[in-house]
Amino acid sequence: MTVIENSKSRPRVALAIGCPAGIAPELTARMLVDPTVTSACELIAIGDRRVIERGAQVAGLKPALDFVRAGDKLPDKPVRPVFIDLGNADAAKIPVGEISADAGRSALANFRYAVELAKTGEVDAVTFSPFNKAANRLAYPPYEDEGVFLTEMLGIQGAGSEFNILPKLWNARVTSHVPISGVARLMTVENVLRSLRLTDRTMRASGFNPPRIAVAGLNPHAGDNGNFGREEIDVIAPAIAAGQKEGIVCQGPIPSDTVFVRARKGEFDAVLTMYHDQGQIAMKLIGFEEGVTLLGGFPFPVLTAAHGSAYDIAGKGVANPGAMRAAVLLAARMGKGREGQMHAA
Amino acid sequence: MTVIENSKSRPRVALAIGCPAGIAPELTARMLVDPTVTSACELIAIGDRRVIERGAQVAGLKPALDFVRAGDKLPDKPVRPVFIDLGNADAAKIPVGEISADAGRSALANFRYAVELAKTGEVDAVTFSPFNKAANRLAYPPYEDEGVFLTEMLGIQGAGSEFNILPKLWNARVTSHVPISGVARLMTVENVLRSLRLTDRTMRASGFNPPRIAVAGLNPHAGDNGNFGREEIDVIAPAIAAGQKEGIVCQGPIPSDTVFVRARKGEFDAVLTMYHDQGQIAMKLIGFEEGVTLLGGFPFPVLTAAHGSAYDIAGKGVANPGAMRAAVLLAARMGKGREGQMHAA
Repeated sequence: MTVIENSKSRPRVALAIGCPAGIAPELTARMLVDPTVTSACELIAIGDRRVIERGAQVAGLKPALDFVRAGDKLPDKPVRPVFIDLGNADAAKIPVGEISADAGRSALANFRYAVELAKTGEVDAVTFSPFNKAANRLAYPPYEDEGVFLTEMLGIQGAGSEFNILPKLWNARVTSHVPISGVARLMTVENVLRSLRLTDRTMRASGFNPPRIAVAGLNPHAGDNGNFGREEIDVIAPAIAAGQKEGIVCQGPIPSDTVFVRARKGEFDAVLTMYHDQGQIAMKLIGFEEGVTLLGGFPFPVLTAAHGSAYDIAGKGVANPGAMRAAVLLAARMGKGREGQMHAA
Repeated sequence: MTVIENSKSRPRVALAIGCPAGIAPELTARMLVDPTVTSACELIAIGDRRVIERGAQVAGLKPALDFVRAGDKLPDKPVRPVFIDLGNADAAKIPVGEISADAGRSALANFRYAVELAKTGEVDAVTFSPFNKAANRLAYPPYEDEGVFLTEMLGIQGAGSEFNILPKLWNARVTSHVPISGVARLMTVENVLRSLRLTDRTMRASGFNPPRIAVAGLNPHAGDNGNFGREEIDVIAPAIAAGQKEGIVCQGPIPSDTVFVRARKGEFDAVLTMYHDQGQIAMKLIGFEEGVTLLGGFPFPVLTAAHGSAYDIAGKGVANPGAMRAAVLLAARMGKGREGQMHAA
């Protein structure tokens, strides 16, 4: 492998078209002509040409693209976005706003291709426009979510960890798709510390130096000194102390009903929550529309908009591209520093 | 008992001074001169004359009051607020902003007196300005919170239920000061239905006809059809169906990370949550400053501001009286219809 040092080169970001029946095609088209995006990275879009053409039409755009086919060598220094046409979705046969296996198959195939590019170092980061979970399940019944899918695809032990990101606030969590009845028994110093380290490492990689991390308690009033649960005393506080010893800038446990009020005021860059809804309730209230989802703990960054495929407004050209733009720009920032190291191999 | 029908009479509301070392005295003083408040109810303030005088001074006010002593008969048709001087706190010996047993003793004595007035029907509703929990515990070590204190005081079986109330949104909960590890085993159809009924009844009593109640799920994505927990299917949905049969306008289970986004837009009047932080995270983000706490399930309404005693700003005259005013006005609304029925006995 030849490492090319070229700080002026742009990181290369894959952008897989998500569900072709939703707002993914039009959002993808908007990214391909957005100068903020295209100046921040070399964009490699992946999907079916007929789908992106429909998306561009919906958005009222005519993106100038270099089309290549699956397996083609990517241009070395592309002057405009590259589109890899996988020819896997006939737009005319995939009605907008309808769940179908064809839609799900195409979305997952595009994503798989993007991940393969990242595995072989041909791109520095992966992004995708919104999936429709129901369509993905029709195409691939064991589909749970993109994180589990990616974990299986990469053959990684243990799940990765999802970050939810607003313009000024990150949220990571120790447990995710777990019933409330099962949360407490997953509360170990090791698990909390692992999430804390991953949060710190991932945020440093995206430019926080260092991030200021608040750690939420598990129980009401953070246990009220052990009156309503002891996990704060036995698990969370020791994990925080261990993290601090390693140089992680963190504090807590802070009651989960005040930590987000403080974070929203700018006191912290991130909140590490103990379970799914503890963070999701807050993040969705603070600013769902602009949110980005980052799959952390993988060998390369994987990002998407936090919102869904929005079948109800698909095809109307009114979908707000803000979150998708934020996702691609963050991918570019995280890919920076990685660029040139691998895809010149 | 003589029931006097007089729809023009104002309900009688007790207002006990909370912690004399916090913002309670100045907020109480503001209520006593607030024409919105005094036109809505006959206010019966309870505390120590020296404390209310200090509070009035801090607020820059000179309330005109009818002072009476403990045990005195209350005036029949008072033209101005009545102040029952219990002589239990020498303001000069209770420094502002300092936790002390004296402060806690006075707050609890005032509250007890107010509750006794409600028990004997001399007032229609009880309100109190903010307590300081630490001071209350110094005065009375088993003190947990005002709800438990009241339950013990009234000798009621089973705890009452707390409502958190913003101007356009109520939140009630099935479980409260319970560790997360213990929440799931309290999820029974009976418990959910009891909370649903109490919410409906309490909100009707305060003017909603009928309230539109959203019921949150317990688990992430409301269990995702049983993938992440079955309480939605086995417990919450049956309780909702039973409530609907009784005429309660309710729906759910709705994932807790979207139910508040929808409620904030005005789709529901109330959200019934399954555990403490599920509601508290949202309510504090939506508008902590204006929040009111109502203790429901007791023979009479008991209300206070949702915020605390704010030692950090006590004595400065800057405390925002909005939440306290909202609490007293809601008490008046709930006392309406009760008035004249008991205190003419």
